[in-house]
Amino acid sequence: MPDLMDTYIENRKMIQPNHANNLDTTHGGNVLKWMDEVGAMSAIRFAGSDVLTARMEQTNFRGPIPVGENALIESYVYEVGTTSMRVRVRTFREDLRTAETELTTESHLVYVAIDEEFEPRSVPDLTVSSDRGAELRDAARKSDENNEHGE
Amino acid sequence: MPDLMDTYIENRKMIQPNHANNLDTTHGGNVLKWMDEVGAMSAIRFAGSDVLTARMEQTNFRGPIPVGENALIESYVYEVGTTSMRVRVRTFREDLRTAETELTTESHLVYVAIDEEFEPRSVPDLTVSSDRGAELRDAARKSDENNEHGE
Amino acid sequence: MPDLMDTYIENRKMIQPNHANNLDTTHGGNVLKWMDEVGAMSAIRFAGSDVLTARMEQTNFRGPIPVGENALIESYVYEVGTTSMRVRVRTFREDLRTAETELTTESHLVYVAIDEEFEPRSVPDLTVSSDRGAELRDAARKSDENNEHGE
Amino acid sequence: MPDLMDTYIENRKMIQPNHANNLDTTHGGNVLKWMDEVGAMSAIRFAGSDVLTARMEQTNFRGPIPVGENALIESYVYEVGTTSMRVRVRTFREDLRTAETELTTESHLVYVAIDEEFEPRSVPDLTVSSDRGAELRDAARKSDENNEHGE
Amino acid sequence: MPDLMDTYIENRKMIQPNHANNLDTTHGGNVLKWMDEVGAMSAIRFAGSDVLTARMEQTNFRGPIPVGENALIESYVYEVGTTSMRVRVRTFREDLRTAETELTTESHLVYVAIDEEFEPRSVPDLTVSSDRGAELRDAARKSDENNEHGE
Amino acid sequence: MPDLMDTYIENRKMIQPNHANNLDTTHGGNVLKWMDEVGAMSAIRFAGSDVLTARMEQTNFRGPIPVGENALIESYVYEVGTTSMRVRVRTFREDLRTAETELTTESHLVYVAIDEEFEPRSVPDLTVSSDRGAELRDAARKSDENNEHGE
Repeated sequence: MPDLMDTYIENRKMIQPNHANNLDTTHGGNVLKWMDEVGAMSAIRFAGSDVLTARMEQTNFRGPIPVGENALIESYVYEVGTTSMRVRVRTFREDLRTAETELTTESHLVYVAIDEEFEPRSVPDLTVSSDRGAELRDAARKSDENNEHGE
Repeated sequence: MPDLMDTYIENRKMIQPNHANNLDTTHGGNVLKWMDEVGAMSAIRFAGSDVLTARMEQTNFRGPIPVGENALIESYVYEVGTTSMRVRVRTFREDLRTAETELTTESHLVYVAIDEEFEPRSVPDLTVSSDRGAELRDAARKSDENNEHGE
Repeated sequence: MPDLMDTYIENRKMIQPNHANNLDTTHGGNVLKWMDEVGAMSAIRFAGSDVLTARMEQTNFRGPIPVGENALIESYVYEVGTTSMRVRVRTFREDLRTAETELTTESHLVYVAIDEEFEPRSVPDLTVSSDRGAELRDAARKSDENNEHGE
Repeated sequence: MPDLMDTYIENRKMIQPNHANNLDTTHGGNVLKWMDEVGAMSAIRFAGSDVLTARMEQTNFRGPIPVGENALIESYVYEVGTTSMRVRVRTFREDLRTAETELTTESHLVYVAIDEEFEPRSVPDLTVSSDRGAELRDAARKSDENNEHGE
Repeated sequence: MPDLMDTYIENRKMIQPNHANNLDTTHGGNVLKWMDEVGAMSAIRFAGSDVLTARMEQTNFRGPIPVGENALIESYVYEVGTTSMRVRVRTFREDLRTAETELTTESHLVYVAIDEEFEPRSVPDLTVSSDRGAELRDAARKSDENNEHGE
Repeated sequence: MPDLMDTYIENRKMIQPNHANNLDTTHGGNVLKWMDEVGAMSAIRFAGSDVLTARMEQTNFRGPIPVGENALIESYVYEVGTTSMRVRVRTFREDLRTAETELTTESHLVYVAIDEEFEPRSVPDLTVSSDRGAELRDAARKSDENNEHGE
């Protein structure tokens, strides 16, 4: 039974000119792509198999990330069904020179575990055995609730 | 005053090996990125200025697109606020050999029109002067309602 | 028997920094690549099979496309042989903010329909059943003639 | 006065999966793009300034290049006008394991030398001071003539 | 005074078809590129300024990483001079499905901190205030010594 | 028995915005990647088979290459073992407008020849039959010695 903390991944992507519009800040679409990629890593690690993206919940962009800074993407599984997993993915703008970070985008993605014939396969139970894990799970659930009742 | 049909764009993207996972079907993240790109084209055309992505509504993936087929992306502005625009974006899997298409992903994105200092600027009114335009607007609104009440 | 209008495709590509030289305008080579890609889409749609590029006719570049604007590429099949198809492909510079477009490049490409062993296979007849289709075919033929007699 | 041999460039590009269609051979469009890139290098070296692509002559594809082999591109300036240069560019399929090469595509490109305001600027005279240079110039001219009289 | 642990970064890169040779395993060159990128992140975080890569020490490749697995790259600053920093960077092959990892490449890179005129600027002192930090520093130094005396 | 000169390859890469940091000069990591790619070409040509990168020797960066200039990469095999080859790879910054070149990076890479099961296979003997070849071999050996005794 994998623990929530086993699925916790942080990944960085340096913003390059091709990721940016002519305002020199990253296109929203690139951030969405990276969030799906890192979210899938958490889901694969939990499921122990390949996964497909089934859903991305409503996603708000609070601010852009300029060329030369990083997109810092944090991801973890916090709820599981029979064959599906809910993953919380947050993107921060990070300036490594100043160590400043700022939340720019948050979303929840649903992935389905699949076998080699692309058929859904069951996933294990999720354990949460540390204070840090419980905190992360609670924050994800709270953010889910806020989404349901509008922002 | 631009018409809805002035913002209607269809764009194709041939799925290449790097767009795909090791199941030879496109990553969800690539589709999200292309939807944002084409949606932004509709919004820029409507606003007559640059735009920023403000929100992507809940997005469900109904099926994958295999390498060698096209992602056919359809986009148009259907509601406008003072400085913002709602854009419906749908992705179809298209096999040009057989002319078959199949809806794989649908979403609604919100863009904000900005001036050269990145400040929000007002957008014109939206007109809908053709039957085809009215049909597209109604379909977008209905799809919005379904989203609000769960799927 | 597919109609000319069934093969009519418009596709857009936003010019990004990597598409550009240090004058901030797109390399001619990128435009050639995109013209081949969109022309192949028209040919595949007509042939109902994969195709190979056999020839690109003389191609003149009338002007560059700056970063941040679109290359708008228009393509359709207008003549067919036993196994080959002639496709007219035109590239326009498009500024979505002002809705201005301007023809920058025009060419004619020849594609050959192939089967799964890479052998040429026959293509259907081309029909032209609308005024718009007849107009497009005549424009393509006229442009062919101009090329033959020098420009 | 630069010599023809000063502009002679050979460049290689290993064919990767994204350069290929689902027949595992390179798209014609990629070859066109690389030919323009290497041709521009010869022209820049001759002109001593930036250049713009003005024309690509009729280009025939004699055969594809499979993934894992190289596109070997050979380029040199062989005729010059007041502000323009004609460049012969040939692409060979090269298998480095067997040292086999085979001509797959040949074309002639015209570039215009430009100054910092994008205005045409004059180019020097072309000298041909070696037997190898004379041979290459004659081959380019002969290939030009063949093109004019059809193939 | 930044601590060694402040510079500790783990980053993942999923191996895609274009990263691979025709043996379906990643080119060594891609791994070198990613190691430089992640090492630079550690150095920028330490220096609080931009950096340039000055040297990469001898680097051995113990094994390839197949398409569909991750390159997991670990990086931290462990020695500093007046304007330079030594960074240890290790790459592991990681299969997220099985949670297996295996060291494939290890190297030491030297970066120089620079100011806005590209001139070297001084870096702060490095502190090591935790057991984990001391362990990482000792492992990096030991690996340095082994390199000096041959492997 | 292949000759040293048969493995001599020069390749150019125009520096584009995505190859560069926010100082508009190329990342060291891109240069490392291109050196491995061109070095592998020399090794494949010598071995007559696929190869794997086994080692990159200490590599110093003497200066950056700005966007719009070329990385000119020179590579050749100069020593061989039973199944391995040593390749000298040097990168020059080249401005085609002025024909100026300047050495920026030099390294030595070791590749291993492999058969279709990825097993090492023996390589032929290396001949050096020209003055130019002998000069290149001696320069490579001398550079090896300098590395061993520090720089």
